[in-house]
This record gives sequence, structure tokens and C-alpha cells, in this order.
Amino acid sequence: MKLYGFWRSLASYRVRVALNLKGIAFEEAPINLLTGAQHSDDYRKVNPQAVIPALIDGDGPPIFQSMAILEYLDESHPNPPLMPKEIRARARVRGLAQIVVADAHPLVVPRIRTYLEKDLAQDEPTRNKWLQHWTAKGLAALEANLAGNPATGRYCQGDMITIADICVASQVVGAAFFNVDTKPYPTAVRILGECMKLDAFAKSHPLKQPGAPAG
Amino acid sequence: MKLYGFWRSLASYRVRVALNLKGIAFEEAPINLLTGAQHSDDYRKVNPQAVIPALIDGDGPPIFQSMAILEYLDESHPNPPLMPKEIRARARVRGLAQIVVADAHPLVVPRIRTYLEKDLAQDEPTRNKWLQHWTAKGLAALEANLAGNPATGRYCQGDMITIADICVASQVVGAAFFNVDTKPYPTAVRILGECMKLDAFAKSHPLKQPGAPAG
Repeated sequence: MKLYGFWRSLASYRVRVALNLKGIAFEEAPINLLTGAQHSDDYRKVNPQAVIPALIDGDGPPIFQSMAILEYLDESHPNPPLMPKEIRARARVRGLAQIVVADAHPLVVPRIRTYLEKDLAQDEPTRNKWLQHWTAKGLAALEANLAGNPATGRYCQGDMITIADICVASQVVGAAFFNVDTKPYPTAVRILGECMKLDAFAKSHPLKQPGAPAG
Repeated sequence: MKLYGFWRSLASYRVRVALNLKGIAFEEAPINLLTGAQHSDDYRKVNPQAVIPALIDGDGPPIFQSMAILEYLDESHPNPPLMPKEIRARARVRGLAQIVVADAHPLVVPRIRTYLEKDLAQDEPTRNKWLQHWTAKGLAALEANLAGNPATGRYCQGDMITIADICVASQVVGAAFFNVDTKPYPTAVRILGECMKLDAFAKSHPLKQPGAPAG
């Protein structure tokens, strides 16, 4: 498979983890978000929305949106599964994942930061406060659903790695990028720690990718 | 079932449509977003994230996040199906849905509008421009994926109503709320028109709900 991604992209991180958990061979084509490469004519032919990630599997059309890609990988490569079988458990896993994918992460992506700077003329401290505020809100929503919930185990849903863990991991990793204090979210932080014991998470980490700053 | 929703909520609209397409009996408990009722202690016991919708099915715990609820309803009540069977088609349906649920809609919800007003001191014209800008961006992304794509039919994915249509409908309905010109997005507008021929969409419309302004 071919993944269009970028070292810093948290959505690319999610897909990279799933590919590695499934043991799927892939190459990653970097789309440099820092230079705006996602807006190039060439990349728009892959994904007209001009966002990453996008995944090519064989000769099929590009698959877009990280959550759709995660579900696709789980359906096309069922082992190991990344979704529980029971439908209420599946709903909880998807709900936790969507807190990250639909409510928290969209607020900190490049196009929002650019709009705050160029269109709303917000200075850097104000923009950083925005990034920290919404990252913390996402973590708080996760923590409120995870802490003390009997469905939570070693991972988000019992002791099975699911799509929810992939999304929680990306949210906690993002918190480090934006210097968000994660002490109020011990369950989310603990789950990231459990995930990072697994090679698929560790080697997929943004700072382990080509182009990432050293140290 | 019991849906915690609100007439104006586009995410509640999505769930209401799915319930009606499936022919599931439900009552709706209004959570007034205009008075901030989602932040009440009572509602936080239902959904600690303090957002709607949330769905109660029997004696199970609340199901949260509109996309997770849509998938839950399709898994718990498979007829009529709202997802195609073929996995690449499923990925496209989920990708289209996520453009709305994950990339466009989260930018126009009450908490964002409040932050723009209170924390960033943006005046009403600037806030309206924000709402229009991101609503249009979502429509443009949908249109780029729908127009001229051989997978698009009467609806987003061939001639079958799917979760993607529910999400596209909510995005085009939202555009009317924010006075966004939808002429550049004829395929999305056409699909809303097809959807509105179905009673499940028409009677679920925000302006048809109790509490909505007349006319």
C-alpha cells in the first residue's frame, strides 16, 4: 500500500499505527504540510480535499479520512482485529475515536492555524492558547469517558487494542507538541504508555519519521 | 430509544434521519443549546463531554458521537442498510461522511462560536464569516469527491441511501442556516433534494422540530 502522510500529521500517525499493527507492507510518500505541499495540483489529484492522509491499496481509488482508512484496514485485513465484535462495545470504541477525530483534532490542523493567523490576525501566543485549549478539551472528554468506567481496561476497551487506542494515542502525542499539561488526564496518559510498549505504536511515532527534528 | 437532541443541532438531525429511515420508535429529549443546557450537571451524567446527540437504547449506557450512533443503528437494525457491503464502497461512504462530521461541522458548533466571541473578541460579522468559510470548505470538499465520480449515483454511493447522504444532507441544511451560497456545489444540493423526497429526511429537518422558529 502507499500512504500519503507527513511526519508531524497526527492523522497520518493513526494510519501508520494501524498499518503496522496489521503487519501490512507500505511505503509512505511525504506531503510536506510545512510548505503547503498538500495544496499542489499533483496531490489534489490524489485527494481533492487537499488534506492528508490518503491511502492507495492496489489499483483502487485513494481512500481518504483517517477514520475511514482505519475502518477499511480493519475490514480488509481482519487480523488482528482493531474493533470488538459486540455492537455496544463497537459504538463505545467509535465514540471515543470520534472525540479525537471529529471534535478535537480538526481544531488544530494547519488550515485552522493559518486562518487564525491570516484571516483573524491572531498573534502567536493567542494561537498557541487556542491549540492548547482544544487539545485539553479533547483530553478532558476522553478522560471523563475512560476514568472509572468498567469497560476501560488495560486499553480503552478492555484489554484489546482498538481504533480508540490509536486515536487516544494521537491525542496525547499531540498534547506534547502543543505543551499541554497532561496531568489532569491520567487514564489517557496511562493508555498511551501501554500503547507505546508495542512496536507498532513506537515506530510509528511522529518524531521517529524521516524529516522529523532530532531529539 | 431516547435521543438527547435539539432542533437546531445538525448532528441530532443526522441521528433523527437514521432512526426514521430504520423505522425505530424513539422519543427526543430536547437539550437547549441556546441556553447552554448541555452543560447542566444532569446532562453531563448522560454525556460527560457535554455535547449532543446521545442515544439511549434500552438499559445500556449512552451512545455518543453522531457517527458512532449512525454505525450503531446500522449494526443493531440492519434493515434497511445504510452502508454498502463492498469494503471500498464502505470506505468511500465513511470518507464522505467524515468530511462533514470530522472536518466541517466541528468548526461551527456552539463551543467554537462562543470561544470566537468571548476568548478572541471577534465581532458578529467576523464570526459569521468564519461559519460561512468552513461550511463552504466542507461543501467544496464534498463536491470535489461527488461531481463526475462514477461511484456517485442518485445518492452519494450509487442509488442506495447511506450514512454519507445523511451527512451531506446535514451539511447542505447547515449552509442555509449560515446563508452560504450553495450554487458552486450542485451535486451536494441535488443529493439533498433527492433525500428530501423521503419522509425520513423531510420530517427530521431541524425546522420541523418542536421549538424551531416558524417559517
